Amino acid sequence: MGKEFVKSITGMEEDFAQWYTDVVTKADLIDYSSVRGSMIIRPYGYSLWENIKNELDARIKETGHENVYMPLFIPESLLQKEKDHIEGFAPEVAWVTHGGTEELAERWCVRPTSEVLFCEHYKNIIHSYRDLPKLYNQWANVVRWEKTTRPFLRTLEFLWQEGHTCHATDEEAQEETIKMLNVYADLCENILAIPVVKGQKTDKEKFAGAKQTYTIESLMHDGKALQTGTSHHLGDGFAKAFGIQFTDQEGKLQYVQQTSWGFTTRVIGAMIMVHGDDRGLVIPPKAAPTQVIIVPIAQHKEGVLDFAYGLKMQLSRIARIDIDASDKKPGWKFNEYEMKGIPVRLEVGPKDIENGQVVLARRDTGEKIIVPLNELEAKLPELLDDIQYNLYKTAKTYRDDNTSIALNLENLEKQLEKKPGFIKAMWCGDKACEDQIKERTGATSRCIPFEQERISETCVCCDKAANNMVYWAKAY
Amino acid sequence: MGKEFVKSITGMEEDFAQWYTDVVTKADLIDYSSVRGSMIIRPYGYSLWENIKNELDARIKETGHENVYMPLFIPESLLQKEKDHIEGFAPEVAWVTHGGTEELAERWCVRPTSEVLFCEHYKNIIHSYRDLPKLYNQWANVVRWEKTTRPFLRTLEFLWQEGHTCHATDEEAQEETIKMLNVYADLCENILAIPVVKGQKTDKEKFAGAKQTYTIESLMHDGKALQTGTSHHLGDGFAKAFGIQFTDQEGKLQYVQQTSWGFTTRVIGAMIMVHGDDRGLVIPPKAAPTQVIIVPIAQHKEGVLDFAYGLKMQLSRIARIDIDASDKKPGWKFNEYEMKGIPVRLEVGPKDIENGQVVLARRDTGEKIIVPLNELEAKLPELLDDIQYNLYKTAKTYRDDNTSIALNLENLEKQLEKKPGFIKAMWCGDKACEDQIKERTGATSRCIPFEQERISETCVCCDKAANNMVYWAKAY
Repeated sequence: MGKEFVKSITGMEEDFAQWYTDVVTKADLIDYSSVRGSMIIRPYGYSLWENIKNELDARIKETGHENVYMPLFIPESLLQKEKDHIEGFAPEVAWVTHGGTEELAERWCVRPTSEVLFCEHYKNIIHSYRDLPKLYNQWANVVRWEKTTRPFLRTLEFLWQEGHTCHATDEEAQEETIKMLNVYADLCENILAIPVVKGQKTDKEKFAGAKQTYTIESLMHDGKALQTGTSHHLGDGFAKAFGIQFTDQEGKLQYVQQTSWGFTTRVIGAMIMVHGDDRGLVIPPKAAPTQVIIVPIAQHKEGVLDFAYGLKMQLSRIARIDIDASDKKPGWKFNEYEMKGIPVRLEVGPKDIENGQVVLARRDTGEKIIVPLNELEAKLPELLDDIQYNLYKTAKTYRDDNTSIALNLENLEKQLEKKPGFIKAMWCGDKACEDQIKERTGATSRCIPFEQERISETCVCCDKAANNMVYWAKAY
Repeated sequence: MGKEFVKSITGMEEDFAQWYTDVVTKADLIDYSSVRGSMIIRPYGYSLWENIKNELDARIKETGHENVYMPLFIPESLLQKEKDHIEGFAPEVAWVTHGGTEELAERWCVRPTSEVLFCEHYKNIIHSYRDLPKLYNQWANVVRWEKTTRPFLRTLEFLWQEGHTCHATDEEAQEETIKMLNVYADLCENILAIPVVKGQKTDKEKFAGAKQTYTIESLMHDGKALQTGTSHHLGDGFAKAFGIQFTDQEGKLQYVQQTSWGFTTRVIGAMIMVHGDDRGLVIPPKAAPTQVIIVPIAQHKEGVLDFAYGLKMQLSRIARIDIDASDKKPGWKFNEYEMKGIPVRLEVGPKDIENGQVVLARRDTGEKIIVPLNELEAKLPELLDDIQYNLYKTAKTYRDDNTSIALNLENLEKQLEKKPGFIKAMWCGDKACEDQIKERTGATSRCIPFEQERISETCVCCDKAANNMVYWAKAY
């Protein structure tokens, strides 16, 4: 039975990229298909996405947004209406040229993002200040024709939500942009236990067509950064291109101020690379499809399975719990559920039953705890909370330990060579310096963080005065 | 203020098609865009779909299925693997020929349905009888290049779920096929209050590649039928084309037996055309995004708004409730929420407060009921249940009143001319007769219902002996 072999994965330190590929496939998150660059999200991966989606959808609704659904396709002429936008996206869209046997008069692209569709609709439905704000969101699949792809991190097609809003004033749009960035940060930190740095993108790195882009950035276990969510203040650029105007309270015609913000399946990649280890996936309890897996020991002995199923029933009110009562060996099961990153393994065998206890094994630390049955209902939620907290704390410590400062370019380059991570360094604001840093070190500006520090007086790259501290890193 | 005008719609009897278009747009369910044949599903329409989706998703999970996500695209060579399937779908797919500026070596179509993607995956993951059954489902958008489109009923892109399962035996696959048809019927009858006829499709009408297709058919207010959900027993045709084999308990290689089943946004069209009336939409309480709308009367008078908001807070535990406290006139509000089909309007003004009562107006019957405040929490759920039941009963009576029998072709033709509806008539089983009936009357075979009646001894079209009673109708 091939299934009885314990699955093994490449070590993280040995080959991080191979470790990642091993984890996503052997933990049954995804499978490949003949569709280049796309992934099959398998039941375990999809239930993880459903948990993330439900948490985020609730937050999006709580903040007053409504879900809608826009078409999958965008006629080429519509995509071209906003100049920066088309320039940014044209090289990476999939083009539909035929419907059935008939050639189309105009090509349609598969949406890479839906700003232009929302704008066309907003022009139809917004007329007066009474129609504002419009706070819409959609859950959808989008396509970007990437050459090099990796599951979750960069795929030809991915799943996401994209929020698109219209406001009467620049201030309101700014407030919305930051509010949604904070929603993303909250989700990452409190559900996925991923610490993030919040900040603003430089002009070079901002979204095609945006006035400002804000981002949350997190640090992966290999010292590379990952952009985990972005929120854009679009200003009135799209509004002018599409003619989205409203009559204000004084009866004057004004252009709306817009925002857009998106969060994708990519975050699953972040979760894997922040918490995973050499035994596989580690999923924070709040995001885990299964929080506790019961593994019966010596399950052929009388009473063990009945007892284990009884525990499952009892505890299902307080945790997402499952049982593996298959005839595979406990060792195989231990390995399998460690690979899948299930936060807690509950072992119960004849001796435990005799002693009125169970064994709880933590996925994060490997620690085993003997818990008397009468304390189980109280202990289990505490343990899940503690694992959640510990994962966040460990990730934050790791990030802090891998964040350093640089005073000049040579310094920056050497530090990145020695140990990849976040580098905090001052920047004058010139794109030329940003380009030079990237060329010499491979690092890009991740963000100008909201929490600024004055590391030095001059730019890390040139001698000019610098007022902004920037996070630099190699990135996914 | 344009908004203050009461919206009006075309009468159903005057022009049913125009009535339908008026309802879907004026009740704010959809909007059009420059993407031909696609629709924008607006917040009200999308929250309706979310309710339907949540109800169906829960039933799909309860019956042991797992959600997955397959790629949007299908390489042409993959689509061609099963011959009947490609023949059926090739004329109606959208083809992607370019990615960015590069022409693809092989065309990709946008999925019209995902059988071939599931089959390719199943071949990878199914090896032994221990891997069976595989019970997968996905929520997705699909594209069919329709020439003539109507919102919800037939659109170029639509949203749906598609279930795809693999079983060890033909009997298990048959059981699954019927089980999921029953899930669809339950959803239609108990949530959407749409009575359905369950039955089997004729060979002419079955799914491209299926061994058998089962369907639920419902009757619209204009006497036309609508196929509301289908469930297919695929047999081993796809399994043979894709080589999906497993080792059975005796160690012999066998092909799996497959099913697929789908339910789409089309059902919203059915709901509109079964329950709607000349004042607009009528939504059954169990599916309604808002079940109760509070309209304060003389809201400028002291205490009215406070009282109305208090009621909203109090009742939000027992119903999905909203309030319109805008400065529009009550008459405008009455009209607006009737148009939107909200099951119950709750009116409350100074006199009601004085008398310790509110007025409940039913959307289905127009009846107004005065309810003392201390009875409201008990009465409201009863009223919602009664509306739900009444909508189902009324629709069933309408369907039964518009179902007749025919003994010969002339008879069938005349009845359809006189009054469109379901016609029950015997059929010999020959496609030639089916074709002739369609040609002469425009009616198609909707299904061979599970509940058979022996109407006559011979076929409605020819003189041959007939063992099957068939539902015939003109259809959407």
